[in-house]
Amino acid sequence: MAKRSEFQLIEEVFSTLGADRADVLLGVGDDAALVDTGGSELIALCVDTLTAGVHFPLDTPAAAVGYKALAVNLSDLAAMGARPQWALLALSMPEVDSAWLDGFRQGLHALALQHDVALIGGDTTRGALAASVTLVGLVERSAVLRRAGARPGDGIYVSGSLGDAAAGLYLLQNDQLLDQQSDSYLLERLQRPQPRVSLGQALRELASAAIDVSDGLLADLGHILDRSAVGAIVDLRQLPLSSALRQRFEIDQAAAFALHGGDDYELCLTIPAARETELAKISATLGVALTRIGTIDAKPGLRLLDQNGQLQQPSRQGYDHFARST
Amino acid sequence: MAKRSEFQLIEEVFSTLGADRADVLLGVGDDAALVDTGGSELIALCVDTLTAGVHFPLDTPAAAVGYKALAVNLSDLAAMGARPQWALLALSMPEVDSAWLDGFRQGLHALALQHDVALIGGDTTRGALAASVTLVGLVERSAVLRRAGARPGDGIYVSGSLGDAAAGLYLLQNDQLLDQQSDSYLLERLQRPQPRVSLGQALRELASAAIDVSDGLLADLGHILDRSAVGAIVDLRQLPLSSALRQRFEIDQAAAFALHGGDDYELCLTIPAARETELAKISATLGVALTRIGTIDAKPGLRLLDQNGQLQQPSRQGYDHFARST
Repeated sequence: MAKRSEFQLIEEVFSTLGADRADVLLGVGDDAALVDTGGSELIALCVDTLTAGVHFPLDTPAAAVGYKALAVNLSDLAAMGARPQWALLALSMPEVDSAWLDGFRQGLHALALQHDVALIGGDTTRGALAASVTLVGLVERSAVLRRAGARPGDGIYVSGSLGDAAAGLYLLQNDQLLDQQSDSYLLERLQRPQPRVSLGQALRELASAAIDVSDGLLADLGHILDRSAVGAIVDLRQLPLSSALRQRFEIDQAAAFALHGGDDYELCLTIPAARETELAKISATLGVALTRIGTIDAKPGLRLLDQNGQLQQPSRQGYDHFARST
Repeated sequence: MAKRSEFQLIEEVFSTLGADRADVLLGVGDDAALVDTGGSELIALCVDTLTAGVHFPLDTPAAAVGYKALAVNLSDLAAMGARPQWALLALSMPEVDSAWLDGFRQGLHALALQHDVALIGGDTTRGALAASVTLVGLVERSAVLRRAGARPGDGIYVSGSLGDAAAGLYLLQNDQLLDQQSDSYLLERLQRPQPRVSLGQALRELASAAIDVSDGLLADLGHILDRSAVGAIVDLRQLPLSSALRQRFEIDQAAAFALHGGDDYELCLTIPAARETELAKISATLGVALTRIGTIDAKPGLRLLDQNGQLQQPSRQGYDHFARST
């Protein structure tokens, strides 16, 4: 996958690009941008590109590419608590392959219908295979979820399970996929992530901070810590790992997928301790597992408790993001 | 350049993609989409991608690529009479080249400042060089310019001059650029088109139909004719051709660039005869040439008067679009 840190630097270069407008409440750098047109709701906008050979293997089924091109953007809006509305698609293809196009369309269409998203614009060009979706949504002015806002004492939660997509990709890339249920599940989690749109909206007046887990838990939780100017302790024994992942991999490898792997598209959120019972109700109502994995504290940086409950020194890829702030 | 017809077919496939939402007033197929969030203004959205080797030669200066990536979208909003506000960028690069990035940023930044556009979101990925910009604007509900609306008797006008960009590309691709003023001008018109944003806004309560000329006059005027269910007669002797173009090419070649060449990013509009004096005032106020090139009539199809004033049969590439409706 792409070297994220290098590209994050690039995004910093672009964060001051263009006019400085007063109606931009949130620009480059959160899950989505927020603009204010004076109405009761703010407009949330995000863009994400899937490039063949970078974000998905070249032989990924077209329907999975179409599905995921929208799903990753739905996940960004979910992390803001926004309701998705309209999408624009920039599709680049080396040649016109009508079977591929039909599949791509079906995958995108099905997910768009599920979330009542209309495709309102498109540009198709000749080029290397890539699909870039811009998604626009609405969110009430008073109820936006952001990365900033976590406070010492808040519980840290994640939805669903972590590491499945990275494990699926690992099996796929190493030609180790077996014809068994666990592997189908892990592959499905890679190719058909379920963006947590309803959960994001339910969390709007509850979570103190939120982000979607797209680059691995450590990197994404790190964004919350940076923006909120807090630290955290995470207990690796509490990471929600699916039975498929646990069945297929040793615990250390499974935890590594959960911490460093990307493409989960779950939500990571923080919440004041006094409101955790409300969170449990949301979990039950929506049928989405929400697992407490740690606690926000005032000391900068991220500390991990390993499988033995010992404090672990961050050292691997993905950890360097935190090394700077400790 | 890309085979447009093939990709237009693809866009038809995508025109019914996703949910059918009542708040979408205009979806895939106009210069920009229009959505209604209940406010006094509608939101106009468009997306356009520039791909290296397809939409611009690989050795195009980075600043020109950055500039043009926004300019082509500004032109789309201009054709709707919308005021541009916010942009999102999906940039794909094979490797991080900081000098190229600086140039790209400068080109985009300068044009964004000129039009008070904020860059609010970005996604940078590894891949073949391509820049896809989504631009969002606002337009008063009652004053949107569309492709549909031209009526028999309306005059057909174009802004600025036509064919310069295609001529510049021709000289560039055939290694015929000379170190003289005419060639610099034609190249500048290719690399730094001036989107007619102010003109588009001034035309809002005046023009019966409008489009931006991005694929060549015949193709783009053809969209107005199709959407308006009318025909037209265009007098090739009236085509606005720059002195640089006339100096460098014979009249037939110059006219061919104007008719079939792309990348002009001028506006083509239609206007009731009774309001042509108002148009002349706008032209004077904005300092933008507006040239009457023909008349809308009721007979379907497009008829051309050649340099001798004789009715010409459409036969070349680009004409086939009209052959279907004649």
